[in-house]
Amino acid sequence: MIYIDKTSKTSLYEQVYEQLMEQIKTGQMPAGSKLVPTRTMAAELAVGRNTVDKAYQQLKDEGYVEAVPGSGFVVNELPYLPESHGSDSRKGPERQKKQTYEYDFVYGSMENKLFPYRKWGSCMKEALLRLENGDIAVYPEKDGEMRLREAICSHLKQARNVDCSPEQILITCGHQFSMEIIANIFSDGGARTGVSFVMEDPGYDGIRKVFMNRNFEVSAIPVEEDGIDIRPLKGKHVDLLYLTPSHQFPSGAVLSAGKRMQLLNWAQETGSYILEDDYDSELRYYTNPIPSMQSMDNGGRIIYTGTFSKSLSPGMRLAYIVFPPDLMQRYHDFYYRYNGQVNIILQQTLAVYIEKGYFEQQVNRIRTAYRRKMRALITALEDVFGEDVRIQGGKAGMHLLVEFFLQQSGEFLTQEELIDRASDCGIRLYSTRPLYWDQKLCPPQQVLMGISTIPEDKMHEICLRLRKAFR
Amino acid sequence: MIYIDKTSKTSLYEQVYEQLMEQIKTGQMPAGSKLVPTRTMAAELAVGRNTVDKAYQQLKDEGYVEAVPGSGFVVNELPYLPESHGSDSRKGPERQKKQTYEYDFVYGSMENKLFPYRKWGSCMKEALLRLENGDIAVYPEKDGEMRLREAICSHLKQARNVDCSPEQILITCGHQFSMEIIANIFSDGGARTGVSFVMEDPGYDGIRKVFMNRNFEVSAIPVEEDGIDIRPLKGKHVDLLYLTPSHQFPSGAVLSAGKRMQLLNWAQETGSYILEDDYDSELRYYTNPIPSMQSMDNGGRIIYTGTFSKSLSPGMRLAYIVFPPDLMQRYHDFYYRYNGQVNIILQQTLAVYIEKGYFEQQVNRIRTAYRRKMRALITALEDVFGEDVRIQGGKAGMHLLVEFFLQQSGEFLTQEELIDRASDCGIRLYSTRPLYWDQKLCPPQQVLMGISTIPEDKMHEICLRLRKAFR
Repeated sequence: MIYIDKTSKTSLYEQVYEQLMEQIKTGQMPAGSKLVPTRTMAAELAVGRNTVDKAYQQLKDEGYVEAVPGSGFVVNELPYLPESHGSDSRKGPERQKKQTYEYDFVYGSMENKLFPYRKWGSCMKEALLRLENGDIAVYPEKDGEMRLREAICSHLKQARNVDCSPEQILITCGHQFSMEIIANIFSDGGARTGVSFVMEDPGYDGIRKVFMNRNFEVSAIPVEEDGIDIRPLKGKHVDLLYLTPSHQFPSGAVLSAGKRMQLLNWAQETGSYILEDDYDSELRYYTNPIPSMQSMDNGGRIIYTGTFSKSLSPGMRLAYIVFPPDLMQRYHDFYYRYNGQVNIILQQTLAVYIEKGYFEQQVNRIRTAYRRKMRALITALEDVFGEDVRIQGGKAGMHLLVEFFLQQSGEFLTQEELIDRASDCGIRLYSTRPLYWDQKLCPPQQVLMGISTIPEDKMHEICLRLRKAFR
Repeated sequence: MIYIDKTSKTSLYEQVYEQLMEQIKTGQMPAGSKLVPTRTMAAELAVGRNTVDKAYQQLKDEGYVEAVPGSGFVVNELPYLPESHGSDSRKGPERQKKQTYEYDFVYGSMENKLFPYRKWGSCMKEALLRLENGDIAVYPEKDGEMRLREAICSHLKQARNVDCSPEQILITCGHQFSMEIIANIFSDGGARTGVSFVMEDPGYDGIRKVFMNRNFEVSAIPVEEDGIDIRPLKGKHVDLLYLTPSHQFPSGAVLSAGKRMQLLNWAQETGSYILEDDYDSELRYYTNPIPSMQSMDNGGRIIYTGTFSKSLSPGMRLAYIVFPPDLMQRYHDFYYRYNGQVNIILQQTLAVYIEKGYFEQQVNRIRTAYRRKMRALITALEDVFGEDVRIQGGKAGMHLLVEFFLQQSGEFLTQEELIDRASDCGIRLYSTRPLYWDQKLCPPQQVLMGISTIPEDKMHEICLRLRKAFR
């Protein structure tokens, strides 16, 4: 029985989370028992489904429960949660104490010095001047400033083989808000229930959260070495299949050409749409970027999305969607009374920046910097840890998946122990657990290391420090 | 029977719209007959509810049908739609031919020269410099940059008596996206159906559209001279009551102090929330701005929203919500995996701009400019049209409601005729019909005139031209 105190200062989700965790830890809910379905629990407690969902998600992220297809959430055996660490791992993202780290292997941020201050500043100035002689004091064009859409269109054509007109491009205020728009279109603003959303396992949990929040029927299919396992999809209609074909997040797999063709045929036959998230496609270090799936699609089944967070800055908050024409129409139908999302000066600045060729230069600059960081980290890991480390990734993107095999009284240190020990010496590593839908797939010694904020010449020193901490 | 051709280039909603309009015009659907409910029609045609909804809305906006509480959409008597104008009024917003107007009385845009180019440019530069020495290459703080939230907080305290902490303020990419966030929180992302949303009649149709899109149960209550009629609310719980208390849009009414108190008590007693849209509160020309309702609220029942579209530029795409603490928690619960919406340079620029006192200066500048425009237009209208014009508004805001009483073969020119004739001489006036929930409330000779883009010294000339066109 869970008791909710609505007058308490503790948030509702925390109350649910803490009581369930207590029941699991004390054995009141033994391994194998099922959590009450979200909807039922929400109704029983008279709280929002999101509240319960968030509590369940956190229990899942922390490994207390796992999602079992067809059974909902099931309580885990808890070998990897020794009591002594209970109080740490109990802390949710909001409650974590503000610890400062000397080195933070966060995914997605970048080094300040890689932002092109001077060039961006001069483009801002030029955009402002141009607007002074044009129109600043109006609402931006609803789908995005045409000049920016044209610039993005020709960039995508050249860099990613994307075949579209500027009219198919929509400018949004970030990738997750691109997803919100797609969620609105596919669920008719929430009126259509049970819309199916299938993603890769492991996959980006921020996207999963958006579609769970919007009450989609979310499920996941394991990723193999050449991308998602396509057999479970055979003959089955899916409203939206979310893929990261060029560089699967986080596994780094590239979806093979054969699977791409089969998936495009499947989408055509079953009337499914594929959401191609091309989030970091330009960061491929030793071969040319893989062409987009969109470029192979003749049937209008691909929704292509991209962002400027990786190449320019996550502070940009500027992303885009390339819709097939029929979905652009559905977008217009839904959003016909809405204004645009992105500041007009920012849009014009980015247009100038791309037109002048600065963006291409910036991508090259970032690519070079990250290739060097990546190589330095891999070399350092191998030098320092030798046989005790297994590395996944490195040819592309901004992160590695790293497994450390270091024993402590006969057992390997767990993910949580590795992260805690690194933290104690000022280094922040990240759990991969939230990225797994099926918790059994998560390798118990695996951590995620984002390279983008770490200086190249510190990699060796960091690995030595980690080695010491892990002993 | 309506027939949909999904392969046609004509959009689905247009097909529905055109066939229904034809049936109404030919008398197949006589006055008084009801349209099939949206949901049923959508299911019959196998199209989205939004498609049908958009077609119905357009028929309503154009006066073919009206919304009758309890009956849905009912076909109107059509005295004001003479056949000769049928082909014009048939055109939806998207299909209207690109006519350029010499003078456009659009609501919401502003004159280019009123944007503070130099000061904004210098603040951008300062913000960029500051970020160079700080953090640009990170995701912005999720709820908005603290520095900007602090600046807005002290501005609101001083200008609008708003009583809040910076932690209650959320930065968004525009007013409609503020509304989307509120819609997600109140409907649990769409899982909760039948959430009630009550607004003023007339009222801003862009807001109505957001909540209809998100499947809220939308209804409206007529506005009286001292604001919304509060009797229908007595003892009744409403999830969200949307109000524009300081300057009702579009009627210009100010919600009386007595009604404010009663509404706050009502909200407290019934557990309802009031959404206070303070969109143009600073533009009051002859008296001090009316304090916000938020400042009178002790029970945490007010969600206060504002925007920088009116005082700075609609191209800004920057707005904010002040949540009561419990709703801020619900916001965090729903959005805990989302990033912020607004570019970090833009947020920091605006923070600098407010801190330096420039924003206050800008508000004063805009207020002076608009007061002069407003006075010039009213004087010109009265001089030129004398007894034939009735004006509503003028003491605040950016628009007037104007009724022209000009006869043509014994009958007054209708709203549509006035707009068409003005258009023929290069002047754009706006229909108020979309703003009315109950079409019967819409005065048949009323048009909306936004003053913000029209030069003060042109008002007299424009009125003379209109006079000629209306003869």
